[in-house]
Amino acid sequence: MSFSVAVAGASGYAGGELLRLLAAHPQFDIRTVTAHSTAGQPLASVQPHLRSLAHLTLTETTPENLSGHDVVFLALPHGKSGEVTAQLDENTLVVDCGADHRLTSEADWAAFYGGDYFGAWAYGVPELLVAGSKQRKHLAGVRRIAAPGCNASTVALSLAPGIAAGVIEAADIVSVLAVGPSGAGKALKTNLLAAEILGSANSYAVGGTHRHIPEIAQGLRGAGATDVSISFTPVLVPMSRGILATSTARIVPGTSADAVRAAWQNAYGDETFVQLLPAGEFPRTADVLGANTMLMGLAVDEAAGRVVVVTAVDNLAKGTAGAAIQSANIALGIEESTGLPVNGVAP
Amino acid sequence: MSFSVAVAGASGYAGGELLRLLAAHPQFDIRTVTAHSTAGQPLASVQPHLRSLAHLTLTETTPENLSGHDVVFLALPHGKSGEVTAQLDENTLVVDCGADHRLTSEADWAAFYGGDYFGAWAYGVPELLVAGSKQRKHLAGVRRIAAPGCNASTVALSLAPGIAAGVIEAADIVSVLAVGPSGAGKALKTNLLAAEILGSANSYAVGGTHRHIPEIAQGLRGAGATDVSISFTPVLVPMSRGILATSTARIVPGTSADAVRAAWQNAYGDETFVQLLPAGEFPRTADVLGANTMLMGLAVDEAAGRVVVVTAVDNLAKGTAGAAIQSANIALGIEESTGLPVNGVAP
Amino acid sequence: MSFSVAVAGASGYAGGELLRLLAAHPQFDIRTVTAHSTAGQPLASVQPHLRSLAHLTLTETTPENLSGHDVVFLALPHGKSGEVTAQLDENTLVVDCGADHRLTSEADWAAFYGGDYFGAWAYGVPELLVAGSKQRKHLAGVRRIAAPGCNASTVALSLAPGIAAGVIEAADIVSVLAVGPSGAGKALKTNLLAAEILGSANSYAVGGTHRHIPEIAQGLRGAGATDVSISFTPVLVPMSRGILATSTARIVPGTSADAVRAAWQNAYGDETFVQLLPAGEFPRTADVLGANTMLMGLAVDEAAGRVVVVTAVDNLAKGTAGAAIQSANIALGIEESTGLPVNGVAP
Amino acid sequence: MSFSVAVAGASGYAGGELLRLLAAHPQFDIRTVTAHSTAGQPLASVQPHLRSLAHLTLTETTPENLSGHDVVFLALPHGKSGEVTAQLDENTLVVDCGADHRLTSEADWAAFYGGDYFGAWAYGVPELLVAGSKQRKHLAGVRRIAAPGCNASTVALSLAPGIAAGVIEAADIVSVLAVGPSGAGKALKTNLLAAEILGSANSYAVGGTHRHIPEIAQGLRGAGATDVSISFTPVLVPMSRGILATSTARIVPGTSADAVRAAWQNAYGDETFVQLLPAGEFPRTADVLGANTMLMGLAVDEAAGRVVVVTAVDNLAKGTAGAAIQSANIALGIEESTGLPVNGVAP
Repeated sequence: MSFSVAVAGASGYAGGELLRLLAAHPQFDIRTVTAHSTAGQPLASVQPHLRSLAHLTLTETTPENLSGHDVVFLALPHGKSGEVTAQLDENTLVVDCGADHRLTSEADWAAFYGGDYFGAWAYGVPELLVAGSKQRKHLAGVRRIAAPGCNASTVALSLAPGIAAGVIEAADIVSVLAVGPSGAGKALKTNLLAAEILGSANSYAVGGTHRHIPEIAQGLRGAGATDVSISFTPVLVPMSRGILATSTARIVPGTSADAVRAAWQNAYGDETFVQLLPAGEFPRTADVLGANTMLMGLAVDEAAGRVVVVTAVDNLAKGTAGAAIQSANIALGIEESTGLPVNGVAP
Repeated sequence: MSFSVAVAGASGYAGGELLRLLAAHPQFDIRTVTAHSTAGQPLASVQPHLRSLAHLTLTETTPENLSGHDVVFLALPHGKSGEVTAQLDENTLVVDCGADHRLTSEADWAAFYGGDYFGAWAYGVPELLVAGSKQRKHLAGVRRIAAPGCNASTVALSLAPGIAAGVIEAADIVSVLAVGPSGAGKALKTNLLAAEILGSANSYAVGGTHRHIPEIAQGLRGAGATDVSISFTPVLVPMSRGILATSTARIVPGTSADAVRAAWQNAYGDETFVQLLPAGEFPRTADVLGANTMLMGLAVDEAAGRVVVVTAVDNLAKGTAGAAIQSANIALGIEESTGLPVNGVAP
Repeated sequence: MSFSVAVAGASGYAGGELLRLLAAHPQFDIRTVTAHSTAGQPLASVQPHLRSLAHLTLTETTPENLSGHDVVFLALPHGKSGEVTAQLDENTLVVDCGADHRLTSEADWAAFYGGDYFGAWAYGVPELLVAGSKQRKHLAGVRRIAAPGCNASTVALSLAPGIAAGVIEAADIVSVLAVGPSGAGKALKTNLLAAEILGSANSYAVGGTHRHIPEIAQGLRGAGATDVSISFTPVLVPMSRGILATSTARIVPGTSADAVRAAWQNAYGDETFVQLLPAGEFPRTADVLGANTMLMGLAVDEAAGRVVVVTAVDNLAKGTAGAAIQSANIALGIEESTGLPVNGVAP
Repeated sequence: MSFSVAVAGASGYAGGELLRLLAAHPQFDIRTVTAHSTAGQPLASVQPHLRSLAHLTLTETTPENLSGHDVVFLALPHGKSGEVTAQLDENTLVVDCGADHRLTSEADWAAFYGGDYFGAWAYGVPELLVAGSKQRKHLAGVRRIAAPGCNASTVALSLAPGIAAGVIEAADIVSVLAVGPSGAGKALKTNLLAAEILGSANSYAVGGTHRHIPEIAQGLRGAGATDVSISFTPVLVPMSRGILATSTARIVPGTSADAVRAAWQNAYGDETFVQLLPAGEFPRTADVLGANTMLMGLAVDEAAGRVVVVTAVDNLAKGTAGAAIQSANIALGIEESTGLPVNGVAP
């Protein structure tokens, strides 16, 4: 069976990655690609790497152009999805890669984003532990999915097993992420120019202001945390894609190192796209480039009393577009891993 | 007045940076450059960027070749300095850029390095707070100096003001550093190949095993800490030089955000080479490339109860060779900033 | 139908790329992976990005381990393939990614490589113009294939259409290539260290010494050239993969710009994996990252009397492993494009 | 003696590099820094690497703000200098880093730039061979200097010795340059975003359209060429600074390889900032990072009948700001090398 698909925001980085993955998916048929300032141009002029889609032309992002498809993926700026989705048929599967439908707390939305609040949809992170189960259970058959923030899902998946198993504390988490600039989108800002980023590292949104913080806390509360506090700092480094997240949390006193590792092994031992590496091994972001795979390495630092989880993910693939498609597969009853690469492009 | 200088380990990255900075210093006269496998070659064949030193030839690293100079800088592999320095005149100023003479605790040495313990020398971080004063006081007139580990001095300087002022706790520090591969030296290892590092980030020495941990703790104890614990994770990123350290510590309850910032401002407000940026500004490593400057940005995260200090430094310059020369200036009675660049090469 | 496959040299970069592409190929079944110094290790320890092949263990590269498969891919150092292949069954399809079987001239082999000459096999560049036809005609049904040198096939494909159509001269070609370090293999050499390559560009094999020069000339002679001379310079730049080749040749006097472009359009207009971009567009290597696609942009410089062809290719994919698999598809009667990605991973 | 200095366009990359070099110059006193959109801001907010100039504030670029200084450096967009300089005192030394005063041919200006033509000033490339002498002779005492285009001076200096000595032909030159994005300025364009450039190479201005072509030809005619034709292609690669230019020209038949090399050795053997490496050595751009040095490697390709000159330069330093200051030194009677670094920052 084949599903007709439209992608809104097809000229951006997330939109491009959605199309790259969808083009290799045997059950999705890309019919419509929409954009705003580049509407009217051939897709191949804006996304020249998408050779197999060279027959497509960008049209304007309007409800009219998006309607009539089985599935609509939205890769729009924050605050834009809500306007569009209100006019789409409720039987259409809509997957939003923006933030508009992620947060269940209107207060969090107001504090970190502001503007109209559109309400939360099913959260598109199938492997996330939720109340003793996994989030994929809540995705089957739904017609509205909020794909996660790339940093948020990375940190939540990195620590949820320890929270759920009661081996780490949710208070005083510290997470520092090395991230590539594609996560900031194709935005014309001086600090995103190549000359500013090549050969350099710099941080941003320091001190508790990053918008993914409430989303992480929400994810960890879903896994069982009652009192989450997190110091979160992203560091921009010179690689186009990728997140390497170093997340640490205090180990509950009296817990053995083996019990700590077992929590993660139990959580992800059967997963295809979230894998725990053997003790002593830690991932590189290159290992997951272009793949829908998240790799974790874990160490117990007994002197510091903390677990350290190092997680590699491709922010555009498993971090955004891959999560969106994996969730769509579940919602539509397609085998979950269909069309999603597990091997990274390295070196 | 001019001082004759020898540099041992002149073919490596730290040795090359010592020479680059010494070549621009008006009071040092580079007479001898030694190496091991490249002995006999013109310096310019091994360090082709050092055009002004093209008249020098590398000789073997032996006590004979090093003796007879006013100052000897050592940039040798860990464990090699001790053998050499035992045979140098006690009136010669010897500055060791290796780890052999940094740690005051033989137990720390045994636990993190092993092999013969050579004892600690004056620690070459002039701006470090020590018992209500600064470390530069302990460098005047000395003839043996241990230049710091680049990561260690970066983290110690990042947090010492808060420790000394009693506004942060030394327990449960978390520090994650984005570092360039030159810090690992010119070593032929697969994980240091360009194809492995370009476009990727990966961590190493995760979980409390990195050798700079006891050196950080030693520095913070000097600033007044009694009970230090630190979770320390370096992340290798694709830039040749640079460290961007994100260090967080719990704020002592009841301390105002202003009081936190004041601690750093008081500590470094008069320093040339360690500068605190205005509130809301955070440094890029490019800002200090090639310079003897350390830049810090500081945020108070009230929700997390932590201070976040983001510090940029050039691991080879202020992190190693610059610290060595700055300390040598003090020891010899030369004006401390002589010959040391304060402006970085950006973009 | 499924073919059993062995890959020799599976721990290197070319071997890893063969495995990445083969793992996604519906008709190849990877049974055996061999190496030398890493024999005995799990493949996932050496190639951690190949998650779907985590069940495989590296064995020693011996004729015994390689025999008994339908297809054997060799990714061995130059000079090693000949020894191995002499002991493989003549009905086994053997595809050599090394240089041993590329050159038809023993004199060229002696001049540029030296050592035993093993004779030439069918050249694995299906789209190359050969005597009014394409090379794929010579690949059907063969059992010995020499995959091309990445630089050589890039330049040959860049200029063959103009040679074959008689619109450019084969004398006085100039080609300068920006190349990533993965093309040099996973070799422990100082000049391939990350600190040496990050933030820098440098050339090598300057002045007519590069080993791919005779292979380019051979390819162009196949397309009809009688008197080839080429100035060829590779420039190492800080990207892990990719070749951007700028190739220029004198236009035959009296030829119109339209006639020049038509030669390339006629040659590649129907090809899937070698594509000419519209006038005024030029490719980025990111557009073909991980793909079996070669993209060309072409300009006619009337003032200089030269055509300029800018070609982007992934040295490990279309440049090596992709060409090998595409050629194997043809040899085995599988549809030529099977299992080969056409879209690049960008940005 | 000290000269008061103003820098216009101080917020850009060339302006920043002028300031970095001027700050280390013992005879220049930076009084005024001007900009347009950032006027009113502290210089350190826009150029945070210039710590020693943190006391300066940007003012608007107007003739009033620039007048009253001994020296004015202009780093303005093309077409803007002419308006400003008409209002500056004729005894003020004005050094323009833009293109407005480089070309001696109004027809060339019209063909490649367009708009008002302002006439040519003394060309700021002291080492360039001009009619049997060097260009520095024409810089002594002048009050108007046109600093060169970075690509143009690199190629002209690369080939002028062979032209002047009559050992190479000026017809059919081919030059391909690997360049970093800082050469394009701090411009908000999609193709200059970090995500577009990291991990990728791409060319621009292909086929004879680059604006530096007439400037190269003008330089080579000055060295004695009568009939110049050049195929010129820049390739953008992922390094913030640097040009690695590969320039080839046909050797005049009958010329020995030794005679070719001798031409360059004779031209540059006594120069500080333009150096020919020994036979068999070729430069890296890292070797000249931040320095006022141009390094050349030269090979004679007898099979191709061409000389290949590989030249490394820092586009912002020797390519622009360094050349401007070196030329100003000459004009003012200061020792030519004053304040200019010769050693690069590597690795």
